[in-house]
Amino acid sequence: MRASQSVIPGSDEELMARRAASLGPAYRLLYNDPVHFVRGSGVHLYDSAGEEYLDAYNNVPCIGHSHPAVANAVSEQLRLINTNTRYLQDGVVDYAEELLATFPPELGNVMFTCTGSEANDLAVRVANFVTGNSGLIITENAYHGTTAVMAGVSPSLGPGVPRPANVRLIPAPDRYMLAVSDDELREYMLAHVRAAVDDLVASGYGVSALILDTLFSSDGILPNPVSWIAPAAEIVRGEGGLFIADEVQAGFGRLGAGMWGFTRHGVSADIVTMGKSMGNGYPVAAAVFRPELLEEFGPTVRYFNTFGGSSAAISAAAAVLHTIKNEDLVAHSKVLGYQIRTEVQSLASSDPRIGCVRGQGLALGVAFVSQEGTRVPDPALASRVVNAMREKHVLISASGADGNVLKIRPPLVFGREDGARLVEVLAEVLDATRD
Amino acid sequence: MRASQSVIPGSDEELMARRAASLGPAYRLLYNDPVHFVRGSGVHLYDSAGEEYLDAYNNVPCIGHSHPAVANAVSEQLRLINTNTRYLQDGVVDYAEELLATFPPELGNVMFTCTGSEANDLAVRVANFVTGNSGLIITENAYHGTTAVMAGVSPSLGPGVPRPANVRLIPAPDRYMLAVSDDELREYMLAHVRAAVDDLVASGYGVSALILDTLFSSDGILPNPVSWIAPAAEIVRGEGGLFIADEVQAGFGRLGAGMWGFTRHGVSADIVTMGKSMGNGYPVAAAVFRPELLEEFGPTVRYFNTFGGSSAAISAAAAVLHTIKNEDLVAHSKVLGYQIRTEVQSLASSDPRIGCVRGQGLALGVAFVSQEGTRVPDPALASRVVNAMREKHVLISASGADGNVLKIRPPLVFGREDGARLVEVLAEVLDATRD
Repeated sequence: MRASQSVIPGSDEELMARRAASLGPAYRLLYNDPVHFVRGSGVHLYDSAGEEYLDAYNNVPCIGHSHPAVANAVSEQLRLINTNTRYLQDGVVDYAEELLATFPPELGNVMFTCTGSEANDLAVRVANFVTGNSGLIITENAYHGTTAVMAGVSPSLGPGVPRPANVRLIPAPDRYMLAVSDDELREYMLAHVRAAVDDLVASGYGVSALILDTLFSSDGILPNPVSWIAPAAEIVRGEGGLFIADEVQAGFGRLGAGMWGFTRHGVSADIVTMGKSMGNGYPVAAAVFRPELLEEFGPTVRYFNTFGGSSAAISAAAAVLHTIKNEDLVAHSKVLGYQIRTEVQSLASSDPRIGCVRGQGLALGVAFVSQEGTRVPDPALASRVVNAMREKHVLISASGADGNVLKIRPPLVFGREDGARLVEVLAEVLDATRD
Repeated sequence: MRASQSVIPGSDEELMARRAASLGPAYRLLYNDPVHFVRGSGVHLYDSAGEEYLDAYNNVPCIGHSHPAVANAVSEQLRLINTNTRYLQDGVVDYAEELLATFPPELGNVMFTCTGSEANDLAVRVANFVTGNSGLIITENAYHGTTAVMAGVSPSLGPGVPRPANVRLIPAPDRYMLAVSDDELREYMLAHVRAAVDDLVASGYGVSALILDTLFSSDGILPNPVSWIAPAAEIVRGEGGLFIADEVQAGFGRLGAGMWGFTRHGVSADIVTMGKSMGNGYPVAAAVFRPELLEEFGPTVRYFNTFGGSSAAISAAAAVLHTIKNEDLVAHSKVLGYQIRTEVQSLASSDPRIGCVRGQGLALGVAFVSQEGTRVPDPALASRVVNAMREKHVLISASGADGNVLKIRPPLVFGREDGARLVEVLAEVLDATRD
């Protein structure tokens, strides 16, 4: 074909063609003009032409790209020993104790997996086993993972993934789009949780678990208000169900208020799952349980994950946890997040296309609406802003059921000057898109 | 409690108590007297007292514990960049092409996950999507993973994990226990496959896939005969189903006959999954597809796995694949495996407790029976041998629905002297257990 013959060997165009041919059509690339990255350092990524980009999107490298603490720990561990949890090992026990110490005391056991999907999948297995029920309640644009079961509770994957009959949706807790007060939002959410519970019971599934990302990342970054999750969990428990806090997005200090998002909500979690930032990019994830839940599941069902809790995975996770603590990144996330949010709010005050600026810590959502006062989502503008910022070498993305919310979620080691650059480029792009 | 007060701080006993307290009751340790490993090198592991062990069990570190090629590749990659497949990257495309070149040409797309469980889970998602059916056929003591869906097709996990209604079992292809010829075994297996297919169709599930570990590792190491899988796959295809070759155990040259176990059987696979040895311990796994299967699944369902195909995972996988090729480990597996098998067969010829010695490449099964000629499985003896060999610092395990089969599955870099030591210690232990 003429077109493919004209592709320059070694070019990004050629790489994209080879990628499509070998990986197939299920893979996507970010941005209209995808970026080819060859190097990362701290909050910066560098493309194949040596151009620098500010990373305000990736939450996985939470202590920064190519952090030496993780590289050194994994490198040393791979040279020493990297084996599984069926042998006694010190590292996994030391880390388990250190991790559990960051939780309320009722959460006393941790089980290791490789991915957040596997952690959520295990959490649901345990919840179904313990409750004897199978009904699951999630938010309308949730994302909880990519295994068969978790894809079924991830409506953000789109209509191509059918929703199983045992799953009920509740709305996203979006007080801006609903145009309600905090109190009204709480009543609204609780009414929906009650309806979902009643429907699951009436349908014979019973209630296994309410699963919530306490940042509501894929629902559009909705960490506030914090008034409704605790009573929602009580409604679920009233029918024998559990509350699973999915901390894959919110965990490890992202929200600048302790290590875990659910504690902001004053709710007691039965199971907490984590992943993404846990190993700064090394595949390691976990589920933390109230020990009572594993009393029968453990001996009856057992669980072994070949790479879960293996020596090198734990060495990466320990390096990340120590860095978050030693560099006080949780407090940093709170302070810097507040500053960035305030500056973006100031931009918004003179820009009617921005309906709402919200967030907590280093998780920021900016919702675009098409006409002042109408609250009609404007995903086209969000996409235009995301791609224009990429052209100016600042990486962010979009979120929410309508795709109209900027998702800004930088590594925790984002600096004040990085925040200033992010806001400046956002301001430029907002100006340039005012037509 | 008096008992716990008497535990010596820093002892393995204390570590076991701390481990149980933090990880909970779902975790198991190998051997009656668990081993605390602190160092690994090549085919050797070293315990906390500095004592050396010969590893004849772990297939994950296929090119050897702490192999510098993997440590160096991962270390360099973690210092350079470790990001995901939503950005263009060279490494994942280069590796995808190199991996696909090891397959028959009809298998043209690869998708990356972190674990074999995730790869099998994805394979089943694709099979269900493409066929519109949900019925799965597996062997009676299969193991295919630990996600909710894969645990349901892993009867080796035991009766604590219920089997879903859409799953049908066929027997293990065990010509020794069935006391049949190769031809009789083929007819027996095909009759069971036909019955499973008919039952799934009659029950309304239809046939989604036949999933087989082509080594039948958890069924007791049954790589031969190779006559029945190809016609079994055709029976399944006749009802619109697919054949999934689970190469998590057999793949990457383990069987000493090419890279993949299914090609020995002269069968064409629709999907092939792999994991374990792929990254020598770094969590990386994959599913390879006939591209037609992804044509609609890809754009409709999409797939993104945060750590799957990430830069460091690919660097580990590439180091492993290059080492297997450069050191000709497939040929080595064939030659050494044959030698060890022959020597163990010679032990068996004078020991009526050994009913059958079988295997292929560096996968060896030794089935114990309680009385000469009766073919009554003797799991107690297998357990006694496994634990006695551990006391003599040679690591193996047991397998099969009855647990009566020694599972010997060393790293591919096992040497001739390692094989000699394995056989010598096995002989000693067989002598010592003759009572």
